[in-house]
Amino acid sequence: MTTAELELATTNATTLNVSANTMQALVYHGPGKRAWENKPRPIIKDPGDAIVRITTSTICGTDLHILKGDLPSVTEGRILGHEGIGVIQQVGTSVSEFHIGDRVIISCVTACLKCDFCKRGMYSHCRHGGWILGNTLDGTQAEYVRIPHADGSLYSFPSGGDEEGLVMLSDILPTGFECGVLNGQVKPGDTIAIVGAGPVGLAVLLTAQFYSPAAIFMIDLDDKRLAVAKQFGATTLVNSADGHAAHHVMELTEGAGVDVAIEAVGIPATFDICQGIVAAGGRIANVGVHGKPVELHMEKLWDRNISLTTRLVDTATTAMLLKVVRSGKLQPKKLVTHRFAMHDIMKAYDTFANAAKEGALKVVLTNDAPRG
Amino acid sequence: MTTAELELATTNATTLNVSANTMQALVYHGPGKRAWENKPRPIIKDPGDAIVRITTSTICGTDLHILKGDLPSVTEGRILGHEGIGVIQQVGTSVSEFHIGDRVIISCVTACLKCDFCKRGMYSHCRHGGWILGNTLDGTQAEYVRIPHADGSLYSFPSGGDEEGLVMLSDILPTGFECGVLNGQVKPGDTIAIVGAGPVGLAVLLTAQFYSPAAIFMIDLDDKRLAVAKQFGATTLVNSADGHAAHHVMELTEGAGVDVAIEAVGIPATFDICQGIVAAGGRIANVGVHGKPVELHMEKLWDRNISLTTRLVDTATTAMLLKVVRSGKLQPKKLVTHRFAMHDIMKAYDTFANAAKEGALKVVLTNDAPRG
Amino acid sequence: MTTAELELATTNATTLNVSANTMQALVYHGPGKRAWENKPRPIIKDPGDAIVRITTSTICGTDLHILKGDLPSVTEGRILGHEGIGVIQQVGTSVSEFHIGDRVIISCVTACLKCDFCKRGMYSHCRHGGWILGNTLDGTQAEYVRIPHADGSLYSFPSGGDEEGLVMLSDILPTGFECGVLNGQVKPGDTIAIVGAGPVGLAVLLTAQFYSPAAIFMIDLDDKRLAVAKQFGATTLVNSADGHAAHHVMELTEGAGVDVAIEAVGIPATFDICQGIVAAGGRIANVGVHGKPVELHMEKLWDRNISLTTRLVDTATTAMLLKVVRSGKLQPKKLVTHRFAMHDIMKAYDTFANAAKEGALKVVLTNDAPRG
Amino acid sequence: MTTAELELATTNATTLNVSANTMQALVYHGPGKRAWENKPRPIIKDPGDAIVRITTSTICGTDLHILKGDLPSVTEGRILGHEGIGVIQQVGTSVSEFHIGDRVIISCVTACLKCDFCKRGMYSHCRHGGWILGNTLDGTQAEYVRIPHADGSLYSFPSGGDEEGLVMLSDILPTGFECGVLNGQVKPGDTIAIVGAGPVGLAVLLTAQFYSPAAIFMIDLDDKRLAVAKQFGATTLVNSADGHAAHHVMELTEGAGVDVAIEAVGIPATFDICQGIVAAGGRIANVGVHGKPVELHMEKLWDRNISLTTRLVDTATTAMLLKVVRSGKLQPKKLVTHRFAMHDIMKAYDTFANAAKEGALKVVLTNDAPRG
Repeated sequence: MTTAELELATTNATTLNVSANTMQALVYHGPGKRAWENKPRPIIKDPGDAIVRITTSTICGTDLHILKGDLPSVTEGRILGHEGIGVIQQVGTSVSEFHIGDRVIISCVTACLKCDFCKRGMYSHCRHGGWILGNTLDGTQAEYVRIPHADGSLYSFPSGGDEEGLVMLSDILPTGFECGVLNGQVKPGDTIAIVGAGPVGLAVLLTAQFYSPAAIFMIDLDDKRLAVAKQFGATTLVNSADGHAAHHVMELTEGAGVDVAIEAVGIPATFDICQGIVAAGGRIANVGVHGKPVELHMEKLWDRNISLTTRLVDTATTAMLLKVVRSGKLQPKKLVTHRFAMHDIMKAYDTFANAAKEGALKVVLTNDAPRG
Repeated sequence: MTTAELELATTNATTLNVSANTMQALVYHGPGKRAWENKPRPIIKDPGDAIVRITTSTICGTDLHILKGDLPSVTEGRILGHEGIGVIQQVGTSVSEFHIGDRVIISCVTACLKCDFCKRGMYSHCRHGGWILGNTLDGTQAEYVRIPHADGSLYSFPSGGDEEGLVMLSDILPTGFECGVLNGQVKPGDTIAIVGAGPVGLAVLLTAQFYSPAAIFMIDLDDKRLAVAKQFGATTLVNSADGHAAHHVMELTEGAGVDVAIEAVGIPATFDICQGIVAAGGRIANVGVHGKPVELHMEKLWDRNISLTTRLVDTATTAMLLKVVRSGKLQPKKLVTHRFAMHDIMKAYDTFANAAKEGALKVVLTNDAPRG
Repeated sequence: MTTAELELATTNATTLNVSANTMQALVYHGPGKRAWENKPRPIIKDPGDAIVRITTSTICGTDLHILKGDLPSVTEGRILGHEGIGVIQQVGTSVSEFHIGDRVIISCVTACLKCDFCKRGMYSHCRHGGWILGNTLDGTQAEYVRIPHADGSLYSFPSGGDEEGLVMLSDILPTGFECGVLNGQVKPGDTIAIVGAGPVGLAVLLTAQFYSPAAIFMIDLDDKRLAVAKQFGATTLVNSADGHAAHHVMELTEGAGVDVAIEAVGIPATFDICQGIVAAGGRIANVGVHGKPVELHMEKLWDRNISLTTRLVDTATTAMLLKVVRSGKLQPKKLVTHRFAMHDIMKAYDTFANAAKEGALKVVLTNDAPRG
Repeated sequence: MTTAELELATTNATTLNVSANTMQALVYHGPGKRAWENKPRPIIKDPGDAIVRITTSTICGTDLHILKGDLPSVTEGRILGHEGIGVIQQVGTSVSEFHIGDRVIISCVTACLKCDFCKRGMYSHCRHGGWILGNTLDGTQAEYVRIPHADGSLYSFPSGGDEEGLVMLSDILPTGFECGVLNGQVKPGDTIAIVGAGPVGLAVLLTAQFYSPAAIFMIDLDDKRLAVAKQFGATTLVNSADGHAAHHVMELTEGAGVDVAIEAVGIPATFDICQGIVAAGGRIANVGVHGKPVELHMEKLWDRNISLTTRLVDTATTAMLLKVVRSGKLQPKKLVTHRFAMHDIMKAYDTFANAAKEGALKVVLTNDAPRG
């Protein structure tokens, strides 16, 4: 935003004068079909709304699932995307914490802050929000987005902040941290294992180190991903291609197993590894999105004093994560491997969809400066 | 113990003079076979041992499993029983917390207190103990028993204590409290459900009330047991005979489900009820002993922010429970429905094995005064 | 509210037609001066506001302090009162959780829900609210009150609810529960002591029993108050008039002291009792409002592994308390000793100001049905 | 210990043949008087004892206090020292976790593991132990020491371990970690302040980083110590010599104060800084040993939702700390500035007593190889 625009914003008090009513966005047109096309610019509908001009966004594994048609809640015509950073263009009359011109991180989870779940910090289950962006509402892979319940769903950051790193706070870092690290109760000196070295597993890896575990086993089928995990702080790599990952971990821990086993894939085989390696008194923290039931070996686990947790990210720790990023103790930018202009998002999707071949982790999208 | 005996004990300094080397005990002779017969009296083997003359004991559901041959760790010739109250006859040289003549509750779990698990309070996984009485060591359904690691495995109580109630502290009350109530994190105002109104489920029910839940659903197939649960404080009864218990609970909670679902049976069907009724953000606490895997619906639960816990009782809360019993806020005696002399233990087993028909909950066994 | 009124409300969609612009209220006119007089009726100022017609209110010890001139934040002309129950007459455009005609409990603490403190559940330190009613904003001892941030500051209850009991949820019960019981981490089997058997101390006493402590010492100068405490569940009474309360408690606990010492007065002498009786490993939870420093005996306490907590009530547990009240496990009405019509509030203040003489605990005020 | 000795040990099964009955030790002879002199070698007295040949020891600030005569519990003739590492020479009959030849860390706190406090992990208040070494029993600044309750008071480590670093696990690291970091509940992203950059404050600093706080203020009078703190990870240094440390911290935090204020000195002035800088909702964790009462500003703190904790180190986290040291995430050796042979302990004391002038943090003492 230029100085002139900001002045204009100040003059208008509540809205930034924009010259056109349309924008471009990535639109879902049914399984396998997507297009970068013109759409109307969003406008304020409710007093708690904010309109954000997107400067940076990214693609999530969930977006690929949507494109496959796996999520019936996403209907044709929907603008995808639930991660992003941008500049506030307009705010509704009840928005009190944000102002036009503020640079903000958009949480993937929308929180009204008022319902019983929000009051418990379970924003994921907000009765008026939750994960709705790029799902039941138009999302962030666009030039502009409407954010309902803006006061509960946006986070400010100072202008010096690096957007490439900070956009990881929209979803992947709180997901890894809340579902994996906090639910797994990682403690100093713990031995932990992360099953799945994809972007989410790596987000677990980065944030688990906040608590100084003594040993971090990283388990994956792909040696390239494991090599990245090593760079990110994993202490032991286990390639699970031979089907004996659990056995290897048990040997490496001299039969004790791990204090925390974190599932970051979402299939029965990886869940099985977790239940095969968790120590007596340990925790299994599920991060992966599951599409099928798993067989839980209660006949072995009933007397093992373990806990198993599930969680949809609440983004309740975004403020904490932002503090750690600012302190320099976390460099989320490490997760970014590819960069595209937003209008090249069709190419970006191709790259991300072939992550293994392309060596892609997170693919960052940036919008040009705003038009006229 | 008489005054004369006590004087004798004092005179001998470390051992009570007993006139015979034999005793009677309930002995396992392979699947389906048990006998009340003569056995040698136990003697001190290790410095941490205590020899306890049993005054009160009881039978556990696990004892019935042993008799069916379900537990290969229990071999022929083993004296059964892991619950009991008695008087200390003799202590090893390193026993510091107990003395001859002390009346003690025997924990079903033996704790060395020194190993890594014991230091974490996970006595159930003690590297030198755990559940060994009536399992890999001779147990408490006898006139005398040797208790290894006595300082970690016994609890004193004053002579006025009611043994019938206190013997419930050996196993069933800490089991219900630790595995069900503490793991389930029952809080004031919670809505909880207990699946299974047998003795263990009722122990959950009694101890859950320490935390003032607002509603307690009790779920069972047997209306008689449900009626007992009502008397013990359950607020809503659900007979699960129609196979729709989960549906009923969801209706009764207007679709919300329960904050805590406690499994106190140990079969897939009852586990299923729990996963069908747990609210978003809720806890499933498993108490039942499972013999088979269960199907865990991760495709429904992955985003529900739930926790599932397992635990073998640690008897780490025995001192706390003893305080609550003394305060009168817990009357464990309520669980006792039948009483037998120890030498009638064969009949007691018959009664307990036909619990439904006999209306039996816990069956208490008492030894006569010691012989000469 | 009558059916006709409700219909009217529905017709008007956002406001109840009221025939006059004035109301009566209890107004502070400087130290020692108060009057029941005419004031303009409050109107909606911000989108988050609600206007509530007060049906029930009460007087707090803090109101007496205000009248003495102890709180400089309260200026002349202020309507007093921060507790109350009423019916919503009007809501601002951003109020989403409440509607005209809803019966509501008004929390003494106003919570915007959006600021950093509110997101942590520390509503007492809300950057836009906190304790402002009857302090820096006009309060509840009136016919009508404007409640800012209504969605964070009101709690619904069904029409059957007993207002006399429920008005205790505005302040005194959450104060006792949060500052005393939760901060003191009262656990089953604990020995606790409450210093001060006034209304707040009794609120601690009532809510401490949610957690089944084994022994509750109640300490006060006034035998009449102690007798009430006995009726409310205290197990041991200690009259502190002889200046040796700490000594008595230490004798009664055989030198161990108490697991939790709860200060519910707010002067150095009562704080001293707490630090004199807290056991090694225990907690001191301060509830009282202090006007002076205290001498903390760090030379005795530094190695005692204790914690000392302070807290201004957050009313973060109102929903939980409401569930317990509904379940019948808490009868807050017990705290009510006197009842007045709101227009007799001058007399009510006189009674409450002479609580000891009058045997007064909480004094309830009720408004007549609304005028035309 | 040589191979020959070990063989000898093995042959003797329970005791290592030692050629003499005397040893040398640092003996307290009343205020200001100490001597390195001959004393009888300790022998096994109780079944739980172990005799340890000291290889490494160090001097604690508490030892200086003893020498000043500040601790009446320490009587003339006492061998000082409660920190040390050594080799087990002999074990009593009930010691099960350690064997002759094991290299062990000696905890400054002796834990019977059996009493009520030990069962709660509060070893500092053990009814049969606690801090007794170099206090009421002969200590570790000697060639040999008797360790009662050896199974609860010693920790094994593999022969490769660096004794200079590991001897910091006897006292200073668990003290900083338990009393400061754990009690202060340091969390990722927190802003913390440590008042006192002496050895204990630096131990807090090192172990606080296990939890990734965003900012660490270090407050001290001495710029040299502050410079060390900077090297050890402090992010902001505040010299308190001008008497305005609290003011500076409040300015640097823009009036918010710190999430955790850790007192590591033990005088009213430094305690005052802590209560002046703790944020609403924050924690004050006391580590320092206090000799006088402090003035606690309850008139300011009562409504600030803070906690204040005290603790004598329990050494309950030694196993955890050992894991972190082994992982390389903690280098306790950094604390060692000076090294002496044990027989030069008189010089070592002189150096440590002039810590500021000598730039001394921890002074390590090593014994020669055992004689004959």
